[in-house]
Amino acid sequence: MSGTLYGIGVGPGDPELMTLKAVRLIEESQIIAVPKSSDEAQSTAYQIACAAAPQCRKKPVLMLDMPMTRDRQLWERSHDQAAASIINCLQEGKDVAFLTLGDPSIYSTYIYVHERVLRRGYAAKMVAGVPSFCAVAARLNESLTQAASPLHIIPASYQGVEESLEWPGVKVLMKTGRSLQKVRWLLQEQGVADSVKMVQKCGMPGERVYESLSQVPQTASYFSILVVPPKEETK
Amino acid sequence: MSGTLYGIGVGPGDPELMTLKAVRLIEESQIIAVPKSSDEAQSTAYQIACAAAPQCRKKPVLMLDMPMTRDRQLWERSHDQAAASIINCLQEGKDVAFLTLGDPSIYSTYIYVHERVLRRGYAAKMVAGVPSFCAVAARLNESLTQAASPLHIIPASYQGVEESLEWPGVKVLMKTGRSLQKVRWLLQEQGVADSVKMVQKCGMPGERVYESLSQVPQTASYFSILVVPPKEETK
Repeated sequence: MSGTLYGIGVGPGDPELMTLKAVRLIEESQIIAVPKSSDEAQSTAYQIACAAAPQCRKKPVLMLDMPMTRDRQLWERSHDQAAASIINCLQEGKDVAFLTLGDPSIYSTYIYVHERVLRRGYAAKMVAGVPSFCAVAARLNESLTQAASPLHIIPASYQGVEESLEWPGVKVLMKTGRSLQKVRWLLQEQGVADSVKMVQKCGMPGERVYESLSQVPQTASYFSILVVPPKEETK
Repeated sequence: MSGTLYGIGVGPGDPELMTLKAVRLIEESQIIAVPKSSDEAQSTAYQIACAAAPQCRKKPVLMLDMPMTRDRQLWERSHDQAAASIINCLQEGKDVAFLTLGDPSIYSTYIYVHERVLRRGYAAKMVAGVPSFCAVAARLNESLTQAASPLHIIPASYQGVEESLEWPGVKVLMKTGRSLQKVRWLLQEQGVADSVKMVQKCGMPGERVYESLSQVPQTASYFSILVVPPKEETK
């Protein structure tokens, strides 16, 4: 019988924010899958998992080459290959725990492998984790939401960040690392930068909390999350 | 020395989706605080916590009267009293674990007590948990997001649900129980009901998954979450 692929959200950084289910499935799986990449996010997920589930370090690791690239062909090919490598393990009856930061349903790279494995007729399941923005709210010690207002989660790659600032309710800007300058300029332009907070590397070594965007240096980690209050409150 | 109030997200329903930190802090706290209410959400959080942290059941429980009411004065008074009861325990040097479903930063009732306790100069901390919509995505076995698109979390009490359907990206409608009929009518009106999925009581006894809103019966639990795909995909 074929094994199962588990896309496991290891949470935002603090190993204690891993769920009991994540720990159990990592301990029970025969193979740990981690994307091989220079990207900080990848090795971080492995470190978090090993800290909470010590058995993790003793298991064979399947390193998957999944470069973040704009070359669509290369991107497709590398994800197809990653799925094929995982399927090889599943065919041997092994369960594979693919480690992904935060939660697998929210801007994870896991999902592309998940979809490919499902399409090829194998079992793949997602294990929910604590998303980074929840940990950021806890770090800031405040709610992300207001009773009857929406909450918007916006990746920095979204082309409509400017219009999004008009939406009612709180905006969370994710993965702002490289595009921080553009976003900062936009928020300053709108005169709201002082009321925007930022947490960098929440729950990880090197964590920094900024109570105002004006205090943030020129460069920031990929793991930087901005919380933009509703427009009415920034005036 | 005064104790600390912990607002602990116990996750969406499955006790295994509690974090290691939530379990530890529940075990370490001297008092468990739960709102007393006819509301399903309240006792559910206690059941989840007891299933994952068996010590929970042996600890004294502080029942807090926090009715969901539109009477603003009654609402303020009950939350002030809840905060005062908690502060009594903190003054005795006891740590209090306030249990809240999902994550405390996302539409939780905990936050109103948190703010009052902080304002009165006592220590209150939030412990992030897995939000219900992440568990719903895992149950549906699909991503909530698309690479460069935003994600919107919308409480059913939001007055602008109709306009929100125009926003780009996926929309998650939360706590749709009582307003399900209104929302369903709106989605049918827009001709998108067939592509909307719903999960009721995700990870709890009585869980139901609907692959299309058209299959959903007239009444639904308070714990019903709708996932509305981007408009381009519903045509």
